[in-house]
This record gives sequence, structure tokens and C-alpha cells, in this order.
Amino acid sequence: MKTSFKSDIEIAQASTMKPIVEIAKKIGLTEDDLELFGKYKAKLSNEVLAKIKTKESGKIILVTSINPTPAGEGKSTVTVGLADAFTRIGKKAMIAMREPSLGPTMGIKGGATGGGYSQVLPMEDINLHFTGDLHAITTANNALAALMDNHLQQGNELNIDQRRIVWKRAVDLNDRALRKVIIGLGGPLQGVPREDGFDITVASEIMAVLCLAADLKDLKLRLSRMVVAYNDKKEPVTVGDLGVEGALTLLLKDAVKPNLVQTIEHTPALIHGGPFANIAHGCNSVIATTAAAKLADYVITEGGFGADLGAEKFLHIKARSAGIKPEAVVVVATIRALKMHGGVPKTELAKENIASLTLGFANLQKHIETIKSFGLPVVVAINKFITDTELEVQTLLEWCRRENVAVALTEVWEKGGAGGIKLAEELLAVIEKEENKFHPLYDLSDSIEQKVRTIVQKVYGGKDVEFSSKAKKQLLDFEKFGWSNLAVCMAKSQYSLSDDPTKLGRPTDFTVTVREFKPSIGAGFIVALTGEVMTMPGLPKKPAALKMDVDENGNAVGLF
Amino acid sequence: MKTSFKSDIEIAQASTMKPIVEIAKKIGLTEDDLELFGKYKAKLSNEVLAKIKTKESGKIILVTSINPTPAGEGKSTVTVGLADAFTRIGKKAMIAMREPSLGPTMGIKGGATGGGYSQVLPMEDINLHFTGDLHAITTANNALAALMDNHLQQGNELNIDQRRIVWKRAVDLNDRALRKVIIGLGGPLQGVPREDGFDITVASEIMAVLCLAADLKDLKLRLSRMVVAYNDKKEPVTVGDLGVEGALTLLLKDAVKPNLVQTIEHTPALIHGGPFANIAHGCNSVIATTAAAKLADYVITEGGFGADLGAEKFLHIKARSAGIKPEAVVVVATIRALKMHGGVPKTELAKENIASLTLGFANLQKHIETIKSFGLPVVVAINKFITDTELEVQTLLEWCRRENVAVALTEVWEKGGAGGIKLAEELLAVIEKEENKFHPLYDLSDSIEQKVRTIVQKVYGGKDVEFSSKAKKQLLDFEKFGWSNLAVCMAKSQYSLSDDPTKLGRPTDFTVTVREFKPSIGAGFIVALTGEVMTMPGLPKKPAALKMDVDENGNAVGLF
Repeated sequence: MKTSFKSDIEIAQASTMKPIVEIAKKIGLTEDDLELFGKYKAKLSNEVLAKIKTKESGKIILVTSINPTPAGEGKSTVTVGLADAFTRIGKKAMIAMREPSLGPTMGIKGGATGGGYSQVLPMEDINLHFTGDLHAITTANNALAALMDNHLQQGNELNIDQRRIVWKRAVDLNDRALRKVIIGLGGPLQGVPREDGFDITVASEIMAVLCLAADLKDLKLRLSRMVVAYNDKKEPVTVGDLGVEGALTLLLKDAVKPNLVQTIEHTPALIHGGPFANIAHGCNSVIATTAAAKLADYVITEGGFGADLGAEKFLHIKARSAGIKPEAVVVVATIRALKMHGGVPKTELAKENIASLTLGFANLQKHIETIKSFGLPVVVAINKFITDTELEVQTLLEWCRRENVAVALTEVWEKGGAGGIKLAEELLAVIEKEENKFHPLYDLSDSIEQKVRTIVQKVYGGKDVEFSSKAKKQLLDFEKFGWSNLAVCMAKSQYSLSDDPTKLGRPTDFTVTVREFKPSIGAGFIVALTGEVMTMPGLPKKPAALKMDVDENGNAVGLF
Repeated sequence: MKTSFKSDIEIAQASTMKPIVEIAKKIGLTEDDLELFGKYKAKLSNEVLAKIKTKESGKIILVTSINPTPAGEGKSTVTVGLADAFTRIGKKAMIAMREPSLGPTMGIKGGATGGGYSQVLPMEDINLHFTGDLHAITTANNALAALMDNHLQQGNELNIDQRRIVWKRAVDLNDRALRKVIIGLGGPLQGVPREDGFDITVASEIMAVLCLAADLKDLKLRLSRMVVAYNDKKEPVTVGDLGVEGALTLLLKDAVKPNLVQTIEHTPALIHGGPFANIAHGCNSVIATTAAAKLADYVITEGGFGADLGAEKFLHIKARSAGIKPEAVVVVATIRALKMHGGVPKTELAKENIASLTLGFANLQKHIETIKSFGLPVVVAINKFITDTELEVQTLLEWCRRENVAVALTEVWEKGGAGGIKLAEELLAVIEKEENKFHPLYDLSDSIEQKVRTIVQKVYGGKDVEFSSKAKKQLLDFEKFGWSNLAVCMAKSQYSLSDDPTKLGRPTDFTVTVREFKPSIGAGFIVALTGEVMTMPGLPKKPAALKMDVDENGNAVGLF
């Protein structure tokens, strides 16, 4: 084991990338199929996306995890390392991952691009402006807001009730002072005064819409359905009513094309779209995942947070919408995180603690049961940390064997793809051996209440759901507006299976309270809000920005 | 003469671009010198910018105009057509122009990329997100705002007076409802409540800073000097005090590289930076202009609005800061606009009117005198419109001869470079024949009042300047802060030589009132505000966005 470790950016900057044109060759694409962004990034052209539509699809593997803890799970790292492992054993593999938001990068950390020797490159670019997708989404989001406020100002033909405007503005930054604002001040020439607020861009419905759209045409249709406000009769007013879906689609015409990059080991990766995993579905774009499946035999993709949120939403929302059938699911766990689920505080994690570790298995167990209930083969990936003891690892391995679930120790952070070969082999074995009976746990024709109840009982292991009187009243409206057959997108704490973030492990007998619904009609789901949901993060006392710089050659310094 | 005309976008989309790599070859650059953005756009790499620094500079020609009127002057069109004309007569020519803002595109019009057969391509991309420069500036602008509000929230170590914060947020949109806002509402966890406002991105001081920076190092230095607020002792608080100049430079490290595109006739063009021409200096970046001069023998560049604003600022601010010595200045005029200056209303412009035309010459005359007073050779370009009569054109040509000023009729809108050959030849002649005694009209060591007075008297032809009591008080502070030796940047109506937009032609005997100063310490100038200055435009009743769309192949529709 190494005694000193390089930082992620040191490893990334010491790696040699191949020209993206060469990476594209591996998946049968020529330079003409690409829209280059420098030498190491490219978008897939509309022509190539159309051309590959008729090809047969490869196998899609979903990577998810136990409930996240401050100890870290490394789901993105395992996703990257696993794809490299498939490449090493001679399979044509690709990654389909989310692209990071700039806001958190300026705040606490970046590194939504894997870690150690399992990273996608160029990590500085991907974590900064990348190919401009998020900027295009911010612009489209705010153009819509400006056009709506202009509609108010110019006579309000649609009779929008300015107290019932639900479309917020967005910035791709952590800016708490913009959470609640009043706009339109300064007199009659400066707009109509009203309450407003800003979300971080990844929380914009446009991000969810872009990630669920099948193509440009579907994108426009979804955009036109987005609800921006209610009129004086309390009926929804949509983008289509404002007549600006064409302009928004124009602003997004390039953002909708997936971005091709590479891992440290030169495995091709599509990094595209990154919606929040609470008020949205937390998965990269359908266009990227389906394109990757046309271009490779194995596609490794992931969902946000733990399996109760990310996998549930991948399987119920993204897979259903895109007609995707995953072959198998990887549940990532770490010894450290399982010990936290077993009651160990963060400061004590370096010490061996078999009893707490064993207690923590309950969290993993629930997620395994959930994946199996979807009819899908599952493999547990133990993402190794340097502080893990031999006995701890053996205890987890044995528990998995007793539970009759496939398991593999992975060392992808330290060893790249070589550290993920066991996991890749386990996956090939379960895909070969186990029957795949993938099916959703609820039908779209179920009532909204029933859909929420199914998720709470079958995915979270809860007893029941309570709906606030506001939520109940909203459901009556939704029935009237014809929204009852949409999917449900749960906004719940990622830290617990329940809606109480302090309940680690495997809580039972709990009731989840839905205080409010938020319709995302363009995305095609109704968000069920449980507890407080943060759609605009703040900056810490000492933001990461204070250490950032550029060296004399124009390279990023202090990014992570 | 043609009887039917294609729209700008029809002409643009019917044109065949060459790969940008081929365009780069014309100016001695290889693919390795470029950072490609698709096949037809590229940024110049830091390496090539460093490499060409020691080369000898070509000749820089500035294109300016009479005071703009609603009749249109076509300065950008002449700039593009003139460069094409130079190419046609065998000269190695390049364009250095501003990049457009997205906001006005969604509102009334785009087309900051020339017109007719004198356009830069791909015009749709350039008028939408282009290479993301404006998005990077918006992000840097708003990151700074978020970091400052976070500083307030986290204890306010610098004792910033929240009533004296001068740094505003920005969006690259026309959004009047954001002109005056209150932020930080919602209680102690949501930031410190205060008045705020949004400017359009091109009005951000960061745009001016990026356009005046000599290189990445100078950019960082300028960013660190920007004043964001005043503390409880009324002393300036800068970006450097907040310690975030490194992070802002990181966010701008790619935006600072100039963008290479081409004209319809394949002349190379650097389109980079686009600051407002009222509260900023209205010229494309110094980096682009100086790089173009290293790569070509003739560089055609322009300044915003008429010669009283654009040329004055080019010559006093940009040229001084960058050490640029222009060879000659083109003053663009149209028969239509001169008739408006002579008193003809817009509806009557199609009718021949020699008397009013002759009256309008006075405006052109003043600008010619001004350029000559800078010691520079001048050529008048008559930008032909279809409604101009032969007699009108002859009358203007004769007047120019009587005034002893070089003149050329240009038909670049209709004929591309072929319509600009006369103008190119006139320019070559005056550069050859006339002595260039370029000198600024004021010295930086003059007092701020004196600098303003010099501009008003020598450039506008005014009698005197009045300073409000607020402005006088500010000057005392500036003296204390050591800002008195900065340049002056006038914020004045573009429509008149005076500060009264209704006074067309050549007003005399007027006094200009400076109501307030706005220090732009990073840019290196003090803005003198006369009258109302719009830093956030609004949308019209029927915004252009309503007609925009994307066709089934992903191409822009209805952009202009």
C-alpha cells in the first residue's frame, strides 16, 4: 500500500490524455461525427445521434450506493474504475455520467469526476465551464423568466396571477442571498414588483427536461409543457402559452448534445446533464445513456445519492421514460460508511470496529432487497479505503456470501481499472447466471398517493405516508389538470432511508410526511417534498474559491 | 441593382464556410495553435499568443461613424466588407470586432455581425452562446457577488457597509425586472438583506477589464483592483481585499483567449469581447486587436456608437492602454442618416432631399475635425443604401472634396468585399500620403475635470461642463484614493454630440452636465455619467424570441 497519496488534481494533471478524436475511433466515430471543444472534449453531432439510432443497444449497468454519509462512498469513482476494468478485460465499455455544477466547486469541493486513478479528464474543464451546457440552461431558464416578467409588464394578456408565479430564476453558483428576493422595484418602467427567488441551475426544471428528452423534438415538447405560473382562475400557464418554447429550444440546441471525454485509462465517457437528486431525478441525460449503449457493449451509469433515491428514480423515471432495461445494479458500500450506519462517529472511523460494522450491514441489506424487488441482478462493490482492516473486509465479504449476494472488493481509487476487474467479472457472472425480470414497483396509472406509498413502503421500508392538508388539496387540482398519471419524484433526505436525516442504518416503522407537491410537468413528474429541500446552497466561511488561481501558463491551481 | 433582397440569416446560411483550420493557415497558424469549437470556430491558444508577441505589428485601421440614428449606419458591415476588400486586393487583412450580447438578440435584433454580403460566420453561433465568453464573464461577475454576500453573512471582517455596495449582479439578458431588487430576504440563514440590482453582462466591469487586459497576468491584476464596496470608514473595498482575484481569473482563463472565425469571403476575423460603449469603452479586446496586428498586415477594427464616443474611447482609453497607434480612421456615414441629422423624419427618408442632406453634413464635419485633431488620417465611407439617389451621393462626394477629405462610396452590403475596394484604396493612399501625428487630446496627469472638459470641448464641440455637487464631492474622494490620473470614460447619449439626444446635426454652445462619476478601477477609468444610462435593457412588447425556433436538423430559425 502506498504511504503518500497524490491529490486528485495532481493525478489528473500528471495523466496524459489522448486526442478525443482517437478516443472516438474506439467507438467507431470519425472526426466528422464530433464537434470538437479543444483537443480533449467533443460533442456528438446531431447527425451521428440520428445515425446510431437503429443500432442494437449494449448492456446498461447502474451504479448506486448505500445511504451516503460524511465518510464518503465513492460511487463516481467506482463507476469510472468499473468502466476501465471492463476495457481492461477486453470489453467495449463506456461511461454515461452527470456533469458537475460550478457552484459547489467554488464552495467546498469539486470532484464530481471520480477520484484517484479513476477519474474522467480533463477534470479542470469538466468542473469549470466544460462545454457550456449549464450556462445554456441558466440562460434558457432566465430568458423564460425575463419573457414572463415582460409579459406581465406589457399588459399580462394571459392574466397571470403575479402571486402565483412558480418559475424561479437560476445561477450556477452557491448564492444564499438570492434564495428570497423582491424584483421589479423602482417604479412602473422597471417591471411589476413581486416576490421571486433563485435556484442553483441544476435545480432548474430545464435541467430535468434536458436530461429526460429523447431528442430535440421531444425537448421542445417538454419545454412547452413546463408550468411557469397560474392565472387568475388558478389554472396553469405554460411555456407553450407564452409561445417561447422555440426560443428556449434554440438556446439549448447544442447543450442537448452529449459530451465525449475520456478516463485516465482512455475509456470513452459521455458526461452530460446533472439534475438534482432531490427535486429532480438525479441521473445524466437519456440521450447520453442511450447513445452510449448504441456505441458500446457495456455502459456504466449512475444515479445520485443512495439507492433509495438515485436507483429508484433511475428505474422508475429515467428507465421508464427512455425504455431502458438495465442488466444489473452495483451497490457501492464502504467499510467506513457502514460503520457510521452502525453508530460510529466520523472521528472514530479509522479504528477497527466489527460490531458497529455488522450493525451497519442493515442499511446495505435494505438496498439489496430493493434492487432485487425490481427484478434486477445485484452486485455489492466494497470500495476500499486505506483504513479498512483485513478483518473488517472479510466480515463484510462473508456477510454478503451468507446473504447470497454477489460481492467484489474494488481498489479503483488506488489502482484504476486494475482494481475493478473482480467487480467487472462478478457483474458478467450475475448477468450471465441470474434471470433479469426488471419491472417497476408502481404503474403510472396508480394514483399519486399510491405511487408515493409504494415507494415509501417498498423502497424505504417505511410504514405509511402522511399527506399535509396542502398536499391533499394540491392532489385535487392535479386530478383536474390531468397530471395524476405522471411519475413521482421524491424529495427526501439522502442520509436516511426515512425522511429524518438522523436515522441511519435501517430504520423501521416510520411514517414519511409529504408536506407539499411541486409539479414538473415538462420533466413528467410530480415532486413530493418531505422536509426542507435546498434548491440554492450557500458558501462556507472559507470558500474553496479563496485558494483558486491560474499559473503563468494558464493552468488551474487549487481547484481541489 | 437587385430587386429582391435576402435576409442576413438567409445569406449567412447560404454561404459556405471553410474549416477554421484552413482560415488559420492564411495567417500562419497550424491546428496546434487553435482550440477548436466545432469546425468553424476556434480560440487562439496561450502558446500562440505568447509566440507572436515579438513579431512586428501590422497596420490598424479604426472604423467609426457619425452619430447613429434610427436610419442605420452599418459600421460593422463596413468593417467586415473593408477587410474583405483588402483581401481582394492582395493584402493580408484581418478583422478585430466585438462579440454580441445574447440579451438584445432575444429582444429586438441580433446582427452585430455585419450584414448582407459583409458578415462574419457562423452568425447564429456568434449571436447565441458563441464560445461561452459572455457566460464566463456572467459567472465571474456573479461569483464575486456571491462571495461578497457570503463575506457579509460570515462576519463581515472587512467591515463592508452594506448600504455602500457597488458591485451588482449580471445576466446576459434584457430583464428589466432585475434592475432594482432586494436580496437576502427570509431570515438570518438566508443572507443579509440589502438593495441590489442586475446589469446586462456587457455592462459588467469584468467585460471592460477583460477587454483592456494585456494578458492573463494583467487580467488578474486588474480584477484585484476592482472596487466592490466601501467600508464603514468609506474607504474602497476591492476584489484583492476579498482575496478572490485568483478564482475570478480561473473562471476567465479561457474567455480571455480571442475567438477566430471568418467572413463570408473567408477573411480571418477575431471576434472577442464587447463592453458597453456608454459606461465602458465599447471596443473589442486589446488581446484580439494586438494579436490580429501580429498576424496580419492590415487590421480593421471598430469602436461603439459614433466617433464622439467610440473613436474617442478607442483613442484615449484602448490605444493608450495597449500602446496601439492606428494608421487611419474611417468615418462611416449614410445618406439616410445625414438626412435625419438635417431634420428629415424617419418616414420621409426614401425621398430625395438635398437641402436636408446638406444640413446634415455638419455632423459628419465635426467628426472629421475630431479625428484630424488626434493627428490621424481620415477617410469618409459612404455606405450605400438602395434608396440613395445619384444626386444625393454626388452632393456628398463633392462636399467631401471641397472639405479636402478622402471619401469612397462603398457597396459592401450588396457586393461584399468587391463593394469596398475603393475604400481600401483610398485608405492605402491616405496612409501613404498623409503624415500620422497621432496624439491624445488630454494627458492622464490632467485633473479629472480637465479631462472631461477637453473631451466636451474638443470632441463634442461643447462650450463647457457642469459638475453636480455630488460629482464634485466624489472628485475629492478620488483624489484621496489616488484615482485622479485614470482615464475618463464618458457615458453620454450616442444620438447627439451633446448630452441631449434630441439635438441632432452639429449642436453648438451647449453645456454638458456630469451628474455623477462611477469609478472602474480595474478597467482603469472613471466613468462620467451624463443623463440616464441604461445598464439593463428591457424587452419590447413582441420580443424576437417569439419567432425563434430550431428546425428538425437542429438549425436556427427566425434568429433575425
